[in-house]
This record gives sequence, C-alpha cells and structure tokens, in this order.
Amino acid sequence: MIIERLVIVGVGLIGASFALALKRKAEVRHVVGIGRDAGNLRKARELGVIDEIAGDMSSAVRDADFVLIATPVRQMPDLMRAMAPYLSPRAVVSDAGSTKQDVVAAARAAFGAQVAQFVPGHPIAGREKSGVGAALANLYEGRNVVLAPLPENPRAAVERVRAAWLACGAQVVEMDAVAHDAVFAAISHLPHMLAYALVDEIARRDDAATLLAFAAGGFRDFTRIASSSPEMWRDIALSNRAALLAEIDRYRNKLADLRSMIEKSDGGALEKLMTEARAARDAWLLRTEAGSNASPE
Amino acid sequence: MIIERLVIVGVGLIGASFALALKRKAEVRHVVGIGRDAGNLRKARELGVIDEIAGDMSSAVRDADFVLIATPVRQMPDLMRAMAPYLSPRAVVSDAGSTKQDVVAAARAAFGAQVAQFVPGHPIAGREKSGVGAALANLYEGRNVVLAPLPENPRAAVERVRAAWLACGAQVVEMDAVAHDAVFAAISHLPHMLAYALVDEIARRDDAATLLAFAAGGFRDFTRIASSSPEMWRDIALSNRAALLAEIDRYRNKLADLRSMIEKSDGGALEKLMTEARAARDAWLLRTEAGSNASPE
Repeated sequence: MIIERLVIVGVGLIGASFALALKRKAEVRHVVGIGRDAGNLRKARELGVIDEIAGDMSSAVRDADFVLIATPVRQMPDLMRAMAPYLSPRAVVSDAGSTKQDVVAAARAAFGAQVAQFVPGHPIAGREKSGVGAALANLYEGRNVVLAPLPENPRAAVERVRAAWLACGAQVVEMDAVAHDAVFAAISHLPHMLAYALVDEIARRDDAATLLAFAAGGFRDFTRIASSSPEMWRDIALSNRAALLAEIDRYRNKLADLRSMIEKSDGGALEKLMTEARAARDAWLLRTEAGSNASPE
Repeated sequence: MIIERLVIVGVGLIGASFALALKRKAEVRHVVGIGRDAGNLRKARELGVIDEIAGDMSSAVRDADFVLIATPVRQMPDLMRAMAPYLSPRAVVSDAGSTKQDVVAAARAAFGAQVAQFVPGHPIAGREKSGVGAALANLYEGRNVVLAPLPENPRAAVERVRAAWLACGAQVVEMDAVAHDAVFAAISHLPHMLAYALVDEIARRDDAATLLAFAAGGFRDFTRIASSSPEMWRDIALSNRAALLAEIDRYRNKLADLRSMIEKSDGGALEKLMTEARAARDAWLLRTEAGSNASPE
C-alpha cells in the first residue's frame, strides 16, 4: 500500500478523484478530508471519497504520510503555513496547482527546511464541472501528471508521489517549474482567457440574445472552457501573470497579422495559415488520441 | 412531393446531406449532381446521394425545379453566371453560403431580372469533416436555417425553399442579409479566426512539439473549428470582410481589457468577468440544448 493516511486539502473534483482512484486500487488505507465547506466535506464522506473529516489542520496532518493540496492556488500559502508546524518528518506533501513557480515560492516561505518534503505537481486533467460530486475514479487514466521536483527533494519523496499518480493510471513527466509555467501559459491558460473574453464580448451586447440564438456547435466547443471555475482561473491568471501576459501579447500580434491578411483580402496567405493550422491540429490529434475522456485543463 | 428534379451544385457535406434528407422523406424524385471533382461525384452516386451526374451546367439545370448551390461562396458568382441562361422560369434557386450580402450581389449580377427566382439561404449546420462521405440524412434536424429573401422574391418561391428545409427537419428563420452577416461575423466567423490564430501561433514555434504534448481537452475543443475547411473559411473571411474586421477589432479591445486586469493583478475584475461569462454561457446552453449533434457551421 502506497499511502497509510492520506490528507486531501480541498475535497473538490481533483482531490476527490485522486482519493477515489487510490481507494479503487487499495493503495490508501485511510483518507482524511479538510476544507472550508462543511457541507461539501459531509457529501464527500457520504460518497465514500473520504473516511474522516478533520476538524483542524493540526489533527489532519499530524499522522499523515501523504498530503495533497488540491485547492485554487491562491489559497495554498495560508494552508501551507497552517500545516507546516504539524507535519511529520515522514510525510510527503504535494499539490495539484495549475501553476508551479508561485506554489514553489509559497512552499519555501511556509515550510523552510521542510520544503524538501514538498514535491510540486500538476495533474493535467479536469472537467468543466467542479466539486466532489463531479469526481471520477478514472479521471486520471491515461492523463499526464507533471511533477516539478525541487533540488532539495530526496529522490524517495519524488518516487512516492510518482507512485501514487501511477496508481491512479496517470503518466508522470518531470519538468522544472519555469518550463511548466511557460508551457501551460501557452496551451492552457491563454485559451481559457480567450474563451472567457469571447463570451464576455458577446454577452454584454444589447443584441446578445439575438446573437446567441444563432450560436451553434462551433461556439459551444470554442467556449466550453469559459464554463470553468472563475475562482480557479482568476488565481491561475494572477499566479502565472508574467508568462500569461507574454502569451497574450504573442497572440495579439498573431491576430493583428491575421486581421491584416483579411483587410488586404490576401486569400493566399489566409488559406496557407488555415491549411497549416488544420494540418498541425490534425497531426496532434492523431498523436495524442485526446479521446472522449480528455478534459478542460 | 416538394421537388421533382433537384440539382445540387457542389456535392459536399452540405449539399449531399440536403439531398439525403429529402430522399428519406420522399420529397424529391430525382437528384442531379454537378461539381468540379469527378471522383467525388461518382462516390455520391455510389452512396445514393445523387441519381445522375450532370456533364455540364446547361443539361443539369434545364429541367430543374430546384437548384441548391452548396459550394464555397467565392465559387458562386461563376456558377451563377454559368446556370443563368438555362434556368427554367419555374425553377427556384437557393444557396447554402455562410455569408449573404456577397452572395446576393453575385446573384443580382448573374441573374438580372431572374434574381426573383433566387432565395438566399444559410443552413446553420455542419461538421468539421467535409465531403460527401461525411453527409448525414439527419444533419439538419433541429438546426436553424436562415433565409434572407429578396424584395423581388415572390412569396411562393420563398415558401418552396422553406418547405424543403422544413422537410429536412430544420427550423427556418428569416433575416435580411446585412443582419445575417453581422450576427454570424460575431458568433461564428470570429471564433473560427481566433481558433486558427491560436493553432498557428503554437504550431510555428520551435518548441511546438513540447507544447502540444501537454495540450489536453480544453485545447482540443477550443481549436476544433480550426480543423474546418481552409478553402471555405478563407472565402467566408474575404466575403464578410467588413463585418469580420469590426468583430476582430472589438475582440482585440476586449482582450486588451482582460490583459490590463491581469497586468494590474485586479483579481476582483477578473473574477467578475469570468463569473459573468460562465453564467451567460451556461444560460445559453440551457436555452438552446445545443446537444451532441451540434456542429461547427
């Protein structure tokens, strides 16, 4: 058994799916949940996601050998500070945050020398539905999980976190925090911002009802990620601010280029861009088999 | 029976699905196909989509009572000029173009006084797959079809086109060409350009392979419409140029606003925008039931 006492801090979609996956494989003995919403924690216990609701952070983590912090990233600094005094030396702590440099900085500030016990992580899975009720034991099957180990981490700590994610059916990839944040700014954070911006642009118009009455499947899929959690994506935008601003600027330049092709009625350049974009996307789809189970992150 | 002799000009996804839907309801006696790709026409005949391949435009349309032009919009002017001399006075002609003002202008130029026989149309249905092999008899079920009748159209001509689309299971809405082009620039043409731009921006980088290796379901759905036909979308961009440029400019301003919120770390404004966008999208989804059958245009 990989984990004796698992603490899930923030029992939402991500944390609950982690617990369910480990329980299904009998790789965890006892799961403790802690969070700010008592009703959600009761529901998690009723659903069998957690076995125990912790009343406070000290009792939650004192005997834990594995802690997963699965809250929006901006809550993590306070939570890390709250747990630091009570962490057992044998515990490993990881997180599921969508950004990594800010989480690492928070961990260093909160844990001090104990930061060696903290292995930063990011499961590339999710759904636009959130909350414990949306959790799935198979959410991570075939998905990537990025670990961004610190120089201080003993290899054994990294391997324990890796083993837990492998037990969930995920593939584990290691990448440093800077590279992680740049990659996800481009292929995840930017598209989310673009989708939110489009819906906002349409929805605020006087004729929004008429426009939306004719919106079809293209609009629906393009904007699906604009139904994601506002709290989570606000935090991601602020936490990965520098990389995201750089991506927005690159995109604005690209859009200016495309606008110029249309303004000049340059059909050749437009068709070339569209043909190459389609070919790149279709090749990517073939490579990844990002199948029906793929999800908004 | 609504149609005796139907001519489909351009037997791709849209035209072939129209023919299949009418055949299924026994609302067409004989379907003639004409197009630039002989192999595609043979396939259409083998699939039972068409009953006859026309060798030239004059033999195709001479005895037709219904002609549907279902090619990319930039091909329509030539095709209209080619058919005009042979059109029977009892024929009604319609189209399936995604833009309407340019199609109307082409029809007036090609048909002269006979433009009274031309009823502009736009079925809001499609798939990112194209070609006769992707055609579905139920493609239009529950979908909107916009008709943009001309002042010259006798009401009987409009009603014949409406009856054909109703037989395909569609809902028919009338809208003038200017309003049509403005609506679709916002909720269809703009998102297509944004998706093509994102894929192009990512795919051209030196580290594109690394970036795409971590792209997941959010990226896949956001960019689905970038797998649409480049020829068709090049034509739409050029044909609806003025309205599309206006939409791109509005969007660039919105993106500049969003960028400014991130730059100023204005979490309150970001969360407000995201929360309202999500609410608007979720309300739209509930209203439209844009279900599993919905599609990219």
